[in-house]
Amino acid sequence: MRGTLLYGPGDVRVEERETPRIEKPTDAIIRLAATCVCGSDLWPYRGIEEVEGPAPMGHEYVGVVEEVGSDVRTIQPGQFVVGSFFASDNTCEICRAGYQSRCVHAELVGAIGTQAQYARIPLADGTLVATPGSPDDDLVPSLLAASDVLGTGWFAAVAAEAGPGKTVAVVGDGAVGLLGVLAAKQLGAERIVIFSRHESRQKLAREFGATDLVVERGDEGVARVKELTHGLGAHSVIEAVGTQESMMQAIRACRPGGHVGYVGVSHDVVLPGQELFFSGVHLHGGPAPVRRFLPELVDLIWRREIDPGKVFDLQLPLEQAAEGYRAMDERRAIKTLLLP
Amino acid sequence: MRGTLLYGPGDVRVEERETPRIEKPTDAIIRLAATCVCGSDLWPYRGIEEVEGPAPMGHEYVGVVEEVGSDVRTIQPGQFVVGSFFASDNTCEICRAGYQSRCVHAELVGAIGTQAQYARIPLADGTLVATPGSPDDDLVPSLLAASDVLGTGWFAAVAAEAGPGKTVAVVGDGAVGLLGVLAAKQLGAERIVIFSRHESRQKLAREFGATDLVVERGDEGVARVKELTHGLGAHSVIEAVGTQESMMQAIRACRPGGHVGYVGVSHDVVLPGQELFFSGVHLHGGPAPVRRFLPELVDLIWRREIDPGKVFDLQLPLEQAAEGYRAMDERRAIKTLLLP
Repeated sequence: MRGTLLYGPGDVRVEERETPRIEKPTDAIIRLAATCVCGSDLWPYRGIEEVEGPAPMGHEYVGVVEEVGSDVRTIQPGQFVVGSFFASDNTCEICRAGYQSRCVHAELVGAIGTQAQYARIPLADGTLVATPGSPDDDLVPSLLAASDVLGTGWFAAVAAEAGPGKTVAVVGDGAVGLLGVLAAKQLGAERIVIFSRHESRQKLAREFGATDLVVERGDEGVARVKELTHGLGAHSVIEAVGTQESMMQAIRACRPGGHVGYVGVSHDVVLPGQELFFSGVHLHGGPAPVRRFLPELVDLIWRREIDPGKVFDLQLPLEQAAEGYRAMDERRAIKTLLLP
Repeated sequence: MRGTLLYGPGDVRVEERETPRIEKPTDAIIRLAATCVCGSDLWPYRGIEEVEGPAPMGHEYVGVVEEVGSDVRTIQPGQFVVGSFFASDNTCEICRAGYQSRCVHAELVGAIGTQAQYARIPLADGTLVATPGSPDDDLVPSLLAASDVLGTGWFAAVAAEAGPGKTVAVVGDGAVGLLGVLAAKQLGAERIVIFSRHESRQKLAREFGATDLVVERGDEGVARVKELTHGLGAHSVIEAVGTQESMMQAIRACRPGGHVGYVGVSHDVVLPGQELFFSGVHLHGGPAPVRRFLPELVDLIWRREIDPGKVFDLQLPLEQAAEGYRAMDERRAIKTLLLP
């Protein structure tokens, strides 16, 4: 099959890779209907995260089940499925508490690499959620978004306790931040402020429900959020970047007793204990337990109540994956969908 | 009046200080029935926190109202009152959300110094809670504990979401940690594990509701908690020390999706972003909004359902404050009560 490999910083290639097969009786093999490039794929692409290339890339996926292992009970060949970037049994105590990304049997789908024609998904019954039927083509991008960026933005909004009467600030105008806006809106937030200085992203943020735009960053951005909230700060802050600056901006933009939901993968972040202590905020985040939210998200998409697929502003054949990475790296595209 | 002053590290003196007077119409003057030495007083006493001496000391207090300012409406002379170490108006948006320690008009009572015969309490109506009547002598230590250590331990347990079915681990066997045990028990926790290697503290922890003792610290201590919880870690962890080691021990002893409530004042703590991210814990803490809990705590004490005053294992006249500090510094006493 054809699949994407990262050889080193900036060097993405689509090559022949071995077609995956059932390895464990709990596996499923899916034929990908669509896959995409994640903001977190840019860390190794940019050489900020070390990678031992050639490494298979991709951890977002929707597709049709081709084959299942002998222990798979609920997932069946022919079903259209969405899954998370962490395979999970969905039965252990941690899963039942809603933290499937930290399932005691969790496996990282990223190690498998879903920017390809086929993928082996471990723990199929626990990991995959089947859609009610074969989706219309125009629903595929939204279902694909549910696999990571929507699920992650949603988790951030839930972790930030976005809800009725709340002012929510969003740090990061990438796909996750934008879908954090959508999630906050769905959860009933009264006011949604996004930090953004990119016109196309501002426009999409507005469509998703943002009520206020702040172009300032750092302490100036924090000051703007305080101005908008009677000097108190936002009730809820979504952090969707993962740098020192973005984390501190998120914590400082939040009022005492407020909630910061952080989902940007932390890179070289160190939090000053004393400042955090006196901030009085709640801090929660990490790799999103997307599986917790998938049934609800699939349902919202199926009923066309939300359209998170709008974050894909570039669609390319899998063979042009390298251009898909480049466009995101150069911020010409918010998010690239790849068609295998 | 007589009052305590810290001249420099290790140098506590009781001297004549000016008797406080009403300065603002919202003030009250109280005659202290009892006061005490806080674990946080030991930071400047040990020279770890800089102090410009001579500085008035103490921020815990119970006593009888002597006089009130012209704008004070609910608090009256003659009432026996308990208050928090932060004065708060208890009416602003932050107070109403339960974060009185970050009231928009908050004032630190520590700057006033309650290890004395009298104290001026700002924002009396918002800060002070009157008891139903004049307390029996044996209730005074417990009411005094409510002023900080009980309120702080209680907040930590609430922040850690201690409750029915939960295993709670407690890092720190000082007065706050011990009262975190008591709070977790009251909140219905199923299992309460305290890290302690001091016999007298272990004994008190058992009395307050601890079910398990762990003498190991650091990673070994974490391993013991995991053993006790099917390898998962505690649902809730109370951190009541404030050092790098204790914070990391708390975070690592907590399961993914669990809650760490931290109330030890952070000193030179830096949290590694990536480890925190992948831990998946909830982190909440800071200076406890004791005022939120005071009515409930006073009620529990008044009805003799809890006896937090047991943390005072040394009682001295105010004049011997220096010995009270020394005994705590040398860990001969858990907490010293001073009688003015």
